[in-house]
Amino acid sequence: MQTVSENACFGGTQGVYSHKSTACSCDMTFGLFLPEEAKDGPVPLLWYLSGLTCTHENAMTKAGAQAWAADHSIALVFPDTSPRGEGVADHEDYDLGQGAGFYVNATQKPWVPHFRMWDYIADELPALLTEKFAIDGDRQAITGHSMGGHGALTLAMNLPGRFRSVSAFSPICNPTGADWGRKQLAAYLGEDESLWERHDASIMMRKTGFDGPVLIDTGSSDQFIELLRPETLAEAIATRRQPATLRLQPGYDHSYFFVSSFIEDHVAFHAQALWS
Amino acid sequence: MQTVSENACFGGTQGVYSHKSTACSCDMTFGLFLPEEAKDGPVPLLWYLSGLTCTHENAMTKAGAQAWAADHSIALVFPDTSPRGEGVADHEDYDLGQGAGFYVNATQKPWVPHFRMWDYIADELPALLTEKFAIDGDRQAITGHSMGGHGALTLAMNLPGRFRSVSAFSPICNPTGADWGRKQLAAYLGEDESLWERHDASIMMRKTGFDGPVLIDTGSSDQFIELLRPETLAEAIATRRQPATLRLQPGYDHSYFFVSSFIEDHVAFHAQALWS
Repeated sequence: MQTVSENACFGGTQGVYSHKSTACSCDMTFGLFLPEEAKDGPVPLLWYLSGLTCTHENAMTKAGAQAWAADHSIALVFPDTSPRGEGVADHEDYDLGQGAGFYVNATQKPWVPHFRMWDYIADELPALLTEKFAIDGDRQAITGHSMGGHGALTLAMNLPGRFRSVSAFSPICNPTGADWGRKQLAAYLGEDESLWERHDASIMMRKTGFDGPVLIDTGSSDQFIELLRPETLAEAIATRRQPATLRLQPGYDHSYFFVSSFIEDHVAFHAQALWS
Repeated sequence: MQTVSENACFGGTQGVYSHKSTACSCDMTFGLFLPEEAKDGPVPLLWYLSGLTCTHENAMTKAGAQAWAADHSIALVFPDTSPRGEGVADHEDYDLGQGAGFYVNATQKPWVPHFRMWDYIADELPALLTEKFAIDGDRQAITGHSMGGHGALTLAMNLPGRFRSVSAFSPICNPTGADWGRKQLAAYLGEDESLWERHDASIMMRKTGFDGPVLIDTGSSDQFIELLRPETLAEAIATRRQPATLRLQPGYDHSYFFVSSFIEDHVAFHAQALWS
């Protein structure tokens, strides 16, 4: 593992690190904020999964999460959204290939062997973080934005016991039923739609739900809301009687101005679960 | 004036606007955050002047100022750092020409007629803002980062009565005595160094000071600190007995991670002056 940069930030350190990923068969880069308290021992960890086109850097510089993570003595990890580099497959569309890993393990050409973001986020990166940094692996929570909200929700429901709480900003809620999803799931996983189901938050909510608190914010003026299908997840949550808070925030759109406006709430929400 | 974008943000609106600038003889773009309270009438305005290489966008997306401006019912303006576009002179160095206007009115070729950032910030943009938006021109304060900290301090001291308070992050404190300054002042203003003096915060502090509170933060690990020369301004402030708070923040560098870590303090500092 190599240190790309480390900057003092809200009393702690905002680092950027790269490492050879076994899951993705390439070098991967992530951002990690450690609060001051990490000097004295392991702290809880909040995952932030980013959306289409993003790298590790967007949320790290634009979401404003470090202020609140420092307040609550919580670490933040900002993984990349796909494998990258020469020799890694890509596509001319912004929503497929590099920057669009969709948090699945691809089984189809040309996306094997690199596009294994599920294994990277579920197994490889958490093992690295708890080995190399003062992170308490028993206290993890997860959030994300757009495609990253999809990743957060599906990882949380597929890995019971891993995350104490899950939240999302403008998540892709029903990828098996929308253009943000069908295209990518077909490309990465193939045409057998039964294999897509565990990667659909609305289907997973109907099937298994989540054993912990859920918080989801979506802007009422989100320009991509037809692709996100929040109504599908809302119905599934209500049908299941899943403890959750769903908010349609009046006038907000899909941008980081929306995320930063509500990140304080999300970090406080996770802090309550992580420190209880 | 044209609206480039408007996004809901912390209950208010983060807008980006462009207009034909008379001062700079080109189109100029700025960011403006208006808090929710601006719907009911004029609100105070805090200027944020950015540093070398920045556009209107860097601080608008990375500094995290809107959270606190919303709390204090204050507008924020993020001007560009130079004229731009085809036909506007430039230089291959990052610290001269476009992105490096240095908040002066150039008198030398090839920088005339476009490089008149002093007039743009001191006269043209404030007139536009108070005409077009719910901004109270009698309640203005100013801050900035690096070259923008230099701009904030020199504008505040040269325009007595305009700004109720001034602050800066890692400002260039003594441009007549450092490579970040001598190069640009010579290029824009010519070799007569007596014309440089009003653009040097340390000299202006010795000569006139500022009739209001001053707050300056610099990182003790700032990688450019030899170019900033905070010691020169510190001495001038102490010699003058200028009411001011100077802080060397342990371990912080020159990045936006530093700015965002302390922006809450700066907005609160200005709010006290703006609302009293």
